[in-house]
Amino acid sequence: MKLLRVGPAGAERPAVLDPEGVARDIGGLVPDIDGALLADGAALERIAAALADGSLPALDAGLRVGPPLARIGKIVCIGLNYHDHATETGATVPTEPVVFMKAPDTVVGPEDTVLVPRGSEKTDWEVELAVVIGRELRYAASHEEALSAVAGYAVAHDVSEREYQIERGGQWDKGKNCETFNPLGPWLVTADEVADPQALPLRLWVNGELKQNGTTADQIFPVAEVVRYLSHFMTLYPGDVINTGTPAGVALGQPEPKPYLRPGDIVELEIDGLGRQRQELKSA
Amino acid sequence: MKLLRVGPAGAERPAVLDPEGVARDIGGLVPDIDGALLADGAALERIAAALADGSLPALDAGLRVGPPLARIGKIVCIGLNYHDHATETGATVPTEPVVFMKAPDTVVGPEDTVLVPRGSEKTDWEVELAVVIGRELRYAASHEEALSAVAGYAVAHDVSEREYQIERGGQWDKGKNCETFNPLGPWLVTADEVADPQALPLRLWVNGELKQNGTTADQIFPVAEVVRYLSHFMTLYPGDVINTGTPAGVALGQPEPKPYLRPGDIVELEIDGLGRQRQELKSA
Repeated sequence: MKLLRVGPAGAERPAVLDPEGVARDIGGLVPDIDGALLADGAALERIAAALADGSLPALDAGLRVGPPLARIGKIVCIGLNYHDHATETGATVPTEPVVFMKAPDTVVGPEDTVLVPRGSEKTDWEVELAVVIGRELRYAASHEEALSAVAGYAVAHDVSEREYQIERGGQWDKGKNCETFNPLGPWLVTADEVADPQALPLRLWVNGELKQNGTTADQIFPVAEVVRYLSHFMTLYPGDVINTGTPAGVALGQPEPKPYLRPGDIVELEIDGLGRQRQELKSA
Repeated sequence: MKLLRVGPAGAERPAVLDPEGVARDIGGLVPDIDGALLADGAALERIAAALADGSLPALDAGLRVGPPLARIGKIVCIGLNYHDHATETGATVPTEPVVFMKAPDTVVGPEDTVLVPRGSEKTDWEVELAVVIGRELRYAASHEEALSAVAGYAVAHDVSEREYQIERGGQWDKGKNCETFNPLGPWLVTADEVADPQALPLRLWVNGELKQNGTTADQIFPVAEVVRYLSHFMTLYPGDVINTGTPAGVALGQPEPKPYLRPGDIVELEIDGLGRQRQELKSA
């Protein structure tokens, strides 16, 4: 299923996309789309059954689409997880996953405004495959066990301020947590609809120009390994999100003058089967 | 006021400490102690008035004390923020705050068990002053504006796995987010009761031996500067927590063989006026 949340920010209604692409209201079935729902197989089955029997009311096509997940617990991010991106940034290929974090309050909808921080000169883009956790996971013993905790997938935009991340004395988190820096969605696509998470093309455009054109086949640590690995350093809970890294083509990897984002720029990004985002950049 | 939460994990009741040190039930006045409460001056005044008029029922003294804050949004941590700790770790004194993050799901009560991760050889202690945010703050223009967003203070134990943090390829977050790695409390002491956050002695013992004996006067970046600085890189919201760094005396700073924590060890820590914690270490 393709789960989504539509309506004003902070007051979204849960919905499911029907085969014609129409958002159907599931607010009468479940309170929201969050970790509790993803951990509740019976509730997910009720949604699937209602979708199949055609009983769900259609929602207004003009409604804003919010992030497809409420009450996110934590967002764990993997750095330098594509061979071509590690190369373009001049980094050595990591021997184990590089881990950093974003606060859930950075999450906005897939078409919401992204704010360039005040004084920022190096705001950069990153299209990423987000993994959504649906079951508590500690010390996973295998890739199979790890994947069994994955509820679904979504498009994430891991917006990054490179000066804050790299040049301001310390850890990457400083350039990853500016407000609006994690557009998510449009959909949370349940894992059963993603045949192979390592065969997903990802693309990103700035002002209509294709900047990133990669595939999750190029990931250094595939989804199953990322989830397994993380579960040995932290407990994963339903409603947690993992941003699994970005392919080559970010501004940081280009020759000088690097084409960092400016207010007025339009970023579009998509992953096959997971939907498409579009953000306008504005000043914070 | 000294706010706290007592009862079983996940089902704590909000309470306030009376002048005799008895926890008084405020569950009839407010639903919980969280960011929404801290942003609600009228609700805080209702608690103060009820405390003053002696109408609040006493709670059983034997109840578990939980973390004093529910629904924490994010935990931002400052690294190397004491001159003596920067020196002991061999780091240069930072010219601007080092920032990393812990997930709110690492938070436990002040006397709850702390788990040594499976395979861990370098689990370390860090007593810290935690700052609790009570008002949204973006791009603070002054230290006064920054401090006006501080709702109160608490003791935090920023438990850290040094191999995961430093030797496992990447960012510090990997060694900071293991389960139970952030005991918090016992109390959230409102800012009006902390005359000077830069004059607080902090102490930590392992198995009865004093290991850390510092003062917030030694902070490189004081609370007002930390809060002001962070608000230029991220939006701070009511219910966010900032761990402001640890003084000298951690295991990492000792000669080999460094005395890292083992299952069975007892850690006690306190900050004058903010209360005392005691944890037993066990195996994950």
